[in-house]
Amino acid sequence: MPRVSADHVLARRQQIVEAALRCFAKDGFHATSMRDVVRESELSAGAVYSYFPSKESLIAAAVAPVLDTLTDALDDIAKEPDRSPSEVVGELLERIYPVAVAGDFDYPRIVVTAWGEALRDPAVRGAVEPTYRAVRGRLVENIIRWRDAGHLPAETNAEALGQVLLSTLAGFVLQHALLGDVELGRYVTALSLLMPHHKAAQAP
Amino acid sequence: MPRVSADHVLARRQQIVEAALRCFAKDGFHATSMRDVVRESELSAGAVYSYFPSKESLIAAAVAPVLDTLTDALDDIAKEPDRSPSEVVGELLERIYPVAVAGDFDYPRIVVTAWGEALRDPAVRGAVEPTYRAVRGRLVENIIRWRDAGHLPAETNAEALGQVLLSTLAGFVLQHALLGDVELGRYVTALSLLMPHHKAAQAP
Repeated sequence: MPRVSADHVLARRQQIVEAALRCFAKDGFHATSMRDVVRESELSAGAVYSYFPSKESLIAAAVAPVLDTLTDALDDIAKEPDRSPSEVVGELLERIYPVAVAGDFDYPRIVVTAWGEALRDPAVRGAVEPTYRAVRGRLVENIIRWRDAGHLPAETNAEALGQVLLSTLAGFVLQHALLGDVELGRYVTALSLLMPHHKAAQAP
Repeated sequence: MPRVSADHVLARRQQIVEAALRCFAKDGFHATSMRDVVRESELSAGAVYSYFPSKESLIAAAVAPVLDTLTDALDDIAKEPDRSPSEVVGELLERIYPVAVAGDFDYPRIVVTAWGEALRDPAVRGAVEPTYRAVRGRLVENIIRWRDAGHLPAETNAEALGQVLLSTLAGFVLQHALLGDVELGRYVTALSLLMPHHKAAQAP
């Protein structure tokens, strides 16, 4: 068997991931089989399985660009402690948008489908739920820092406010997929109207 | 054929709607067939079809209690012009919760599933999309009133802020179904931290 170059391996892998993404956007994670991906990729089953032994590994590879962008953005934002929690959500949206929405694949459609699938398919839930918990946890850390700096009332429930802010992220994805009329810049500007400094708001 | 009483008609109708809701919660709107509902209801196909000639009519009847509650709440809130937009969303959640979440049927699960189905099934989209547009439209009316009363900057984009607020409603439903850890009272309190009066926030 001839040795294959690293470039060839990467290109082949990408070919399979893109085939999987087309299947996921069309039918969702749950209804897509490895067989569907093999057919869509126009490669042999052996080739596909040699890169991705399971559908779970394909799902992970398919969502990796978005998750990596999200993680990087959260790491960067965590370094800037003077961002209000709603600014953080706005910046997350701005960072993810070019990859997840304006890129080659319709991730909002895949994501909204996955929410429903996760309620019935443990494999999909395993791919979805930890991400949301992790993102929300990072938002909560930011809220606690913001609250402790005096910008929010001391009695603010950071967990609950983190839930509200995760909603503003997820709701953008939902409305993009379902109603098709949200526009990033205007949405982020509207977000910035939420949650001004508490101290200022309390001033006479 | 014997005449049947109005009570009997209502009870029979309710029996079918509840069978449909059990099917929808288990499999979603798309995968549930009239045949599934007939089987679940333990009535004859003729009986079921005499009340509900199509799956669309069953979906409409199944979601009617939640939609009616939502519409009533929006009508009531519209009469009180001094509510901030985030208070309005909080009140909507409080009004819908007893019917849609704490009631006999798991509407959040049905709703989250329907979002994904609506992307592929025009019948489901037809049942889902107008509701979201209508609710968002009512939120936008409230925002405009609130903005024109001077509580928000004059340049506030009411449509975009309505999108953000619809997100806080939809995100509650999503997190209830998927993560299972949102609590109504704390979520509504956190919502109330958003969007204090602009004039107060701008005070020195």
